[in-house]
Amino acid sequence: MDNSVGTVTAQRATFDMPLTFRSGAVLPRYELAYETYGTLNQDRSNAILVCHALSGNHHVAGHYAGDPKSVGWWDNMIGPGKPVDTDRFFVIGVNNLGGCHGSTGPSSIDPKTGKPYGAAFPVVTVEDWVESQARLADQLGIRQFAAVMGGSLGGMQAMQWSLSFPERVRHGLVIAAAPHLTAENIAFNDVARNAILTDPDFHGGDFYGHGVVPKRGLRLARMLGHITYLSDNAMADKFGRSLRSGKLGYGYDIEFEIESYLRYQGDKFASYFDANTYLLMTKALDYFDPARVYDGNLDKAFSAARSDFLVVSFTTDWRFAPERSREIVNALLHNHRNVSYAEIASTHGHDSFLMQHEHYHAVMRAYLDRVAGEFSS
Amino acid sequence: MDNSVGTVTAQRATFDMPLTFRSGAVLPRYELAYETYGTLNQDRSNAILVCHALSGNHHVAGHYAGDPKSVGWWDNMIGPGKPVDTDRFFVIGVNNLGGCHGSTGPSSIDPKTGKPYGAAFPVVTVEDWVESQARLADQLGIRQFAAVMGGSLGGMQAMQWSLSFPERVRHGLVIAAAPHLTAENIAFNDVARNAILTDPDFHGGDFYGHGVVPKRGLRLARMLGHITYLSDNAMADKFGRSLRSGKLGYGYDIEFEIESYLRYQGDKFASYFDANTYLLMTKALDYFDPARVYDGNLDKAFSAARSDFLVVSFTTDWRFAPERSREIVNALLHNHRNVSYAEIASTHGHDSFLMQHEHYHAVMRAYLDRVAGEFSS
Repeated sequence: MDNSVGTVTAQRATFDMPLTFRSGAVLPRYELAYETYGTLNQDRSNAILVCHALSGNHHVAGHYAGDPKSVGWWDNMIGPGKPVDTDRFFVIGVNNLGGCHGSTGPSSIDPKTGKPYGAAFPVVTVEDWVESQARLADQLGIRQFAAVMGGSLGGMQAMQWSLSFPERVRHGLVIAAAPHLTAENIAFNDVARNAILTDPDFHGGDFYGHGVVPKRGLRLARMLGHITYLSDNAMADKFGRSLRSGKLGYGYDIEFEIESYLRYQGDKFASYFDANTYLLMTKALDYFDPARVYDGNLDKAFSAARSDFLVVSFTTDWRFAPERSREIVNALLHNHRNVSYAEIASTHGHDSFLMQHEHYHAVMRAYLDRVAGEFSS
Repeated sequence: MDNSVGTVTAQRATFDMPLTFRSGAVLPRYELAYETYGTLNQDRSNAILVCHALSGNHHVAGHYAGDPKSVGWWDNMIGPGKPVDTDRFFVIGVNNLGGCHGSTGPSSIDPKTGKPYGAAFPVVTVEDWVESQARLADQLGIRQFAAVMGGSLGGMQAMQWSLSFPERVRHGLVIAAAPHLTAENIAFNDVARNAILTDPDFHGGDFYGHGVVPKRGLRLARMLGHITYLSDNAMADKFGRSLRSGKLGYGYDIEFEIESYLRYQGDKFASYFDANTYLLMTKALDYFDPARVYDGNLDKAFSAARSDFLVVSFTTDWRFAPERSREIVNALLHNHRNVSYAEIASTHGHDSFLMQHEHYHAVMRAYLDRVAGEFSS
């Protein structure tokens, strides 16, 4: 595979020090699944932390041995010679706490009961994630990241890093994100959550012991999610009003191509993703709002930041529209931060941040060239 | 009550002639629930048919005896001295076939089985509705309507009337509508349908015999619907990120005001609306596409129209945006129709068409003054 980091192996870090969540809940011990690509340089100054979004995980680039199709979710961005150049950077992907891909989460065994946490797993916030990731950085001997980066919910973690640990981040790369969710964003999340919560197979979050999975709810949540990740135009271009069989069926089976696409995505997702993790991730999105304790004043919220920033948005992203990114940019500028901002013309809506896109990748490459110029490799 | 048509009574018309649907299905006999306001003039030239949208019905104006709160869904538009002036017009509201408010629908008894139709009720299209409504007009002795009007799916019926029965409509009033659904529109409908179809209490559409109702699915469908009826800004203005209890709860109960609103709307709807009717209505929306048989050429589709038109859209309506109304206007103009078009600045999204709004109502009043000028009252 050209420009791939090649075969990768997931690793696991254990933390035996209790972690207190924003909610007050305490996790006495936890594990984080992570992967690394590239080599940490002598003075440990070339590390980049990649934070994932709602359904992502630590498998960001490369593939697993014997499974060439198991390509990481941001493989087009990260690798030798790619915008995040693993010949220069030491890149870390981490599965968030509460996740379902190896890090401690609702499906992990609660040592207190010997059963999966389920509903007992605490609601986790972006601040909690950053806290837990900082301990991973400690364990890896990284005092300061060259950059913390992510798209969507991952971009929120990059922002939070610059606020929770201003001295540990030289650059925050905030892509397709927002300073907080709008009422409409929360509304979509709440419909998705209710689909899961009211699925009879959810069993109040403790479905593990019942030998079932709330697939119906997860499927609906994912179908709905996909609508908000795409743009109206992208859907029109890709699917339009095309009929699968060429004629109307006058029934409730799949008729339009868009229905086929959505149901397929829903079924696929429901077959592997954990319902409790989905709930936790959407809550973390809803709660993220650094300006909350400053009466909504984002300028004040960002006063703690010390890093430089690259903020990127996409013209057809109606979930976290460019206006939302500009709110971030303005608040950073008011705090005299060095901010680069790119508004990328893309047809793919919110999902654009995951796509191979020439202009977008050129912007990322140019910015990270500058970041790499700041340390000796 | 000022300017109200006052106490009204629902009526019922029976049609014993079989109706063949576009799907090929045949309904041997059916009933339509309807209401009328005002008086039909001597030459029967002052009748206006009001078509309803997804969750509407025939109770358009006034209230039922002994229940002053039972106000019709378009009471702000219709009454003595109102834009649709019942001192001049004879107004008819009708519950669509397949509905759940008195007209024959899935919950009606199928004479063949002695049980509710359920899943056996045929999928009904906008063309079928117009056909069934024309028979009601026949029965009421109305050869030609002064106007056929409606918002959203109701506007689609107004359009279809002008195509199915060009000589029976003098004016088509098409409000907050579109010439067809986009892939995104269909996608939202499909998520709503799947919420109902996969609810274990749906029983393949034959839940009536099981003593249950697929409330979970209906509730989700309605919650989702409400997001698309409002605008991002309207939601932000009305709910923002306000918390119900003033602080974060770190759980899955209602926290944000928007969640409270959506869940309340969902619960209320699920308590009275028929799940099969919901499915049928969304299918009628998906199917409506007069240009389909003309390879997508809307100009050709409207070549049959003979009436004049008023087309109204609302700036913040992202479900059927002003662009969609302009497609209708352009196609009508290319067919040399008299078309008035108003794009109303309103903050309420798609729901604007139901709202009391000065400019909007002034436009409606002015247009209907002209319509009234064409006949002697």
